[in-house]
Amino acid sequence: MDTALGAVSEYIKKATASSNPIIQEALSDLFTYPGKMLRPGMLILSSQFGTPDPKRIYPLAAAIEMLHTATLIHDDVIDDSPLRRGLPAIHTKFGKKDAVLIGDFLLSRCFLVAAEYTTPQNAINLGKAISVICAMELDQDADRWKPSLSVRNYVKKIIGKTALLFSLACHVGAAEAKTPEQVTERLRRIGYNIGMAFQIIDDILDYTGNESELKKPVGNDLRSGLVTLPLICALRHDTEGTLTRLVQTENFPKSDITAILYLTQQLGGVADARDFAQMYTDRALREIGQLPKGKAKENMEQLAKKLLIRTY
Amino acid sequence: MDTALGAVSEYIKKATASSNPIIQEALSDLFTYPGKMLRPGMLILSSQFGTPDPKRIYPLAAAIEMLHTATLIHDDVIDDSPLRRGLPAIHTKFGKKDAVLIGDFLLSRCFLVAAEYTTPQNAINLGKAISVICAMELDQDADRWKPSLSVRNYVKKIIGKTALLFSLACHVGAAEAKTPEQVTERLRRIGYNIGMAFQIIDDILDYTGNESELKKPVGNDLRSGLVTLPLICALRHDTEGTLTRLVQTENFPKSDITAILYLTQQLGGVADARDFAQMYTDRALREIGQLPKGKAKENMEQLAKKLLIRTY
Repeated sequence: MDTALGAVSEYIKKATASSNPIIQEALSDLFTYPGKMLRPGMLILSSQFGTPDPKRIYPLAAAIEMLHTATLIHDDVIDDSPLRRGLPAIHTKFGKKDAVLIGDFLLSRCFLVAAEYTTPQNAINLGKAISVICAMELDQDADRWKPSLSVRNYVKKIIGKTALLFSLACHVGAAEAKTPEQVTERLRRIGYNIGMAFQIIDDILDYTGNESELKKPVGNDLRSGLVTLPLICALRHDTEGTLTRLVQTENFPKSDITAILYLTQQLGGVADARDFAQMYTDRALREIGQLPKGKAKENMEQLAKKLLIRTY
Repeated sequence: MDTALGAVSEYIKKATASSNPIIQEALSDLFTYPGKMLRPGMLILSSQFGTPDPKRIYPLAAAIEMLHTATLIHDDVIDDSPLRRGLPAIHTKFGKKDAVLIGDFLLSRCFLVAAEYTTPQNAINLGKAISVICAMELDQDADRWKPSLSVRNYVKKIIGKTALLFSLACHVGAAEAKTPEQVTERLRRIGYNIGMAFQIIDDILDYTGNESELKKPVGNDLRSGLVTLPLICALRHDTEGTLTRLVQTENFPKSDITAILYLTQQLGGVADARDFAQMYTDRALREIGQLPKGKAKENMEQLAKKLLIRTY
């Protein structure tokens, strides 16, 4: 898998080449310290259930990582997050104006790759995915500082935020490799469930993680008003109303952040959220169990366990 | 042409439909008061030199207008312009965060339309165009408050800013309608020259226009540090260095803006810029003169004259 991801990285470098010095600098920083490349990884794994042609699969994997990176750049602008993967975010280094344009550039190159190397249907799928992601982000932004958020509403948001792109990665990888339809559909569901569990775990870590591992401060989402599953669950148990009172004011003062983190754990919000994560993990593993036997299946199982069975 | 543009508008409404209330509101405002729809207009006109199929031409025209609108939304965020077409810009009404996302949404739907209704080659052309536009905007941003800009550098910028999308509109419209290659190439050049002249005239109007017609204050570009052709030309004649001294400080004070506008005209910068605009207008009209005779040619000539022969 490392060789394949290396090839995808090379591909991304080629696909984002530009004579513009700002773009050059920003993107070389970004792709010199790539993330975990989970989405291209899942795409490539999924393609191995069919007959993958690297000349089509790698560009598609590159496109999905470029799409993901573009959304991260714009997200960091929107959330005012100074760090990404422990390094200064693009807008911290280049300013918000340039960060918007660099994200747009990456998005356009992602579509270019999709149009050039994949079937029109997969290009359509990418376009659809981005518009859903944007709509979800707008919802998320409108729902800041709203502790009354329901679990249902939270679930809808993390579908757009994470599960959609995970399931798309599996789906297009399998489809492009002409995997039998039933297996392709199963892989899509596996991607979806892994994505859901992965995002819930991420949201739990905002309450329980340690900063050096997270590479960002604990309570980061909370500080920007994002209400996630642990808090939503804790509020259901808050019969005395202590937590409720704390989160009813906009812009929680710094002292309150610690109290909210503590109470969310105490009231069982984190434990409830862990149950949700477990449910999606179980679903993913059950579906993986029903994939055709072979090396690809083993790899997918390993990846799912690595992603989902961590201390949180 | 009005009927055709009406059909394109309807198409845009359909292609940008979303259940998200913010997107709904923002885009319905935007497309209820559409701009002049020059790019779709030129695309449709160009297609009439071949055998256009409305089922393919209208979506393509919609995509190019959506692309243009998305770049305007992000531009206004970047330039901090409060108004667009005399109405509050998207970010003025919805905030910068949402404006970034609404622009992304529109961009993704533009690609979706391209992938769904046009040839892969035209989808590739759109992707390439956006990445060039972004790179140019980054250059423009880096060159704010730099009065030492050369004409050559200015020309390069307005290619990315305007001429590229005008020429792309003509090119893809003609190509999609299977217009003979020589005519398609000519239409591409016509779009390019009209775009160049159009942008230079726009930049002149920032010096000479009246506010009620412009629907934005005179000296708007200047105030945000954009150095355009009239100023570049005027500085060449500034033997006494009065204008040079005024533009050497960052963030020209308000009193200086009026002085810069006045001196740019006095020194002949506006007259020189008019000569450039005339050169591109002449080139466009000469190329139009060599198009195959007929209604389409007459319409193209009319449009070019309407766009380029105005008081400036």
